[in-house]
Amino acid sequence: MSNHLDEFQAYRTRMNDRIAEIDHLGIKRFFNLDSMAYKDGALSAKEKELLGLVASMVLRCNDCIDYHILQCVQAGWKDEELYEAFNVALVVGGSIVIPHLRHAVESLDMAHAR
Amino acid sequence: MSNHLDEFQAYRTRMNDRIAEIDHLGIKRFFNLDSMAYKDGALSAKEKELLGLVASMVLRCNDCIDYHILQCVQAGWKDEELYEAFNVALVVGGSIVIPHLRHAVESLDMAHAR
Amino acid sequence: MSNHLDEFQAYRTRMNDRIAEIDHLGIKRFFNLDSMAYKDGALSAKEKELLGLVASMVLRCNDCIDYHILQCVQAGWKDEELYEAFNVALVVGGSIVIPHLRHAVESLDMAHAR
Amino acid sequence: MSNHLDEFQAYRTRMNDRIAEIDHLGIKRFFNLDSMAYKDGALSAKEKELLGLVASMVLRCNDCIDYHILQCVQAGWKDEELYEAFNVALVVGGSIVIPHLRHAVESLDMAHAR
Amino acid sequence: MSNHLDEFQAYRTRMNDRIAEIDHLGIKRFFNLDSMAYKDGALSAKEKELLGLVASMVLRCNDCIDYHILQCVQAGWKDEELYEAFNVALVVGGSIVIPHLRHAVESLDMAHAR
Amino acid sequence: MSNHLDEFQAYRTRMNDRIAEIDHLGIKRFFNLDSMAYKDGALSAKEKELLGLVASMVLRCNDCIDYHILQCVQAGWKDEELYEAFNVALVVGGSIVIPHLRHAVESLDMAHAR
Repeated sequence: MSNHLDEFQAYRTRMNDRIAEIDHLGIKRFFNLDSMAYKDGALSAKEKELLGLVASMVLRCNDCIDYHILQCVQAGWKDEELYEAFNVALVVGGSIVIPHLRHAVESLDMAHAR
Repeated sequence: MSNHLDEFQAYRTRMNDRIAEIDHLGIKRFFNLDSMAYKDGALSAKEKELLGLVASMVLRCNDCIDYHILQCVQAGWKDEELYEAFNVALVVGGSIVIPHLRHAVESLDMAHAR
Repeated sequence: MSNHLDEFQAYRTRMNDRIAEIDHLGIKRFFNLDSMAYKDGALSAKEKELLGLVASMVLRCNDCIDYHILQCVQAGWKDEELYEAFNVALVVGGSIVIPHLRHAVESLDMAHAR
Repeated sequence: MSNHLDEFQAYRTRMNDRIAEIDHLGIKRFFNLDSMAYKDGALSAKEKELLGLVASMVLRCNDCIDYHILQCVQAGWKDEELYEAFNVALVVGGSIVIPHLRHAVESLDMAHAR
Repeated sequence: MSNHLDEFQAYRTRMNDRIAEIDHLGIKRFFNLDSMAYKDGALSAKEKELLGLVASMVLRCNDCIDYHILQCVQAGWKDEELYEAFNVALVVGGSIVIPHLRHAVESLDMAHAR
Repeated sequence: MSNHLDEFQAYRTRMNDRIAEIDHLGIKRFFNLDSMAYKDGALSAKEKELLGLVASMVLRCNDCIDYHILQCVQAGWKDEELYEAFNVALVVGGSIVIPHLRHAVESLDMAHAR
């Protein structure tokens, strides 16, 4: 099974570098604000990553799902806990989320396989 | 300040009763599945309500926001924690979420005022 | 129970008249194309209205739901058939559709009450 | 022309098996509810598949489109009827649906080519 | 004709003040970034407001439409130009945008009537 | 760097030809209406293409982004101006737009590289 997480991360790094090069003040600040939103605060970084994952699933964005799956695994969420989050996303977002549930399950397995 | 949470809850109860009366097996099972998704499991009910709230905000559904605000307050989430969840939803979903952030903040204040 | 279908139809007529007055060629043609899409063809007008209803529900637009509910009732769809269509929309679109399911059920009851 | 329907079906089967293995009660029930929504009832299975197809197109999900195209062809919908459903989805969902219309037309041709 | 723009602006001001009071750093920075995005730069403030309006229409947010209608009128866009922008939004977003087109036309008329 | 714009254009041409062959009156008229929406009028073709680009970004459609990037470059928009439009789309649509921002930046670079 080829690992699409590696491809995603390589593409993400390459294009984020290119976007940084453009040096647009608004875009740069947005990227900072985005990073800041997931730092420890009144909620822990770990809790916030799970929020980001569910938001990504109901909005049906595979790249965003991959990013947050990796962050969630690193933050210490266990598979059983992530499956519960997948289920909330599925119930809120409906069957249209199923292709992204497949992707999320595959990415989670890949995250453990590397 | 009139309390739109009361109106929402009265309407929700009245129409959920009417939907139950219709007695469609698929719809009834969906409602059960929806309730079940927020029960204690590998994630706590409290954690899942916060996931439901953020999903509702990025999908921009005021009625869903009101429902999950009430559940989150009851589950014990503090305002500072909820503001953090609002911020994640705002960053993920963008300025199009702002009208729903206004609604969420108003509903949270109303939830404390009753 | 006040009938929001009457208000919707009055507002729709008033604003469609105002839009016609603007006389923008592209907008006028779009409105014509929209009407044409629901005329008898390889699929019947009746079948197409049901498609329009489900599309409106998963896209979560109450005004569009009201319009297609009225058209579906007039085209001869029975309540039990419409409940089945509501269920498909609910399963495809998820719990975020529930507030619009409530609205659809209320509008269907109102359509019979006039 | 390589047939993306074969790839889709293989991936779908593989990942649905993996999801079944996870054995999460909520997710399993959701999959059952999803299957049940398209069975004969007050509306026929054939009619419901067409509803599922249009919902998938306006929500812009290619995998869901592929699934329902295959089901619609098997249920006996003719190409001219499906083109009419495509048109309803296009008018409701706008030009943003065009890339998915291209995909749907390609998948329909592929469904006949196997 | 009662003027919903006045109500919208009063509510917006009241709730933005309340949100400012909460004093969440991420939310405050997001609001600043949002304001900054519409300032003169490589594109003029006038051009950017029109982009904001079309984005609000295709994302179907009436409050956002009202805000950008007011900004566009103040920036000097003429009605005929705004109708063209409405048409682009309608074609991109489809008939699901029509209720928001009605709202936009009504708000534009109201903006001139005050 | 392989050029996905070439692939997109080849696929778009092939499938648009196939759709034309189907010869569905509603679909043909929609395609005409879509072309017409971007012609010079009260707003210039150049201005309208930028509106189409931002609409495509907030609705998160890569094919639509590629199409409008090519049109915008041809219409004479400079990179600095397009970056400003990207920023408006990012702020309106939130971090969920970031993968499409990456795509847009890559496509813009590719448009210059051919």
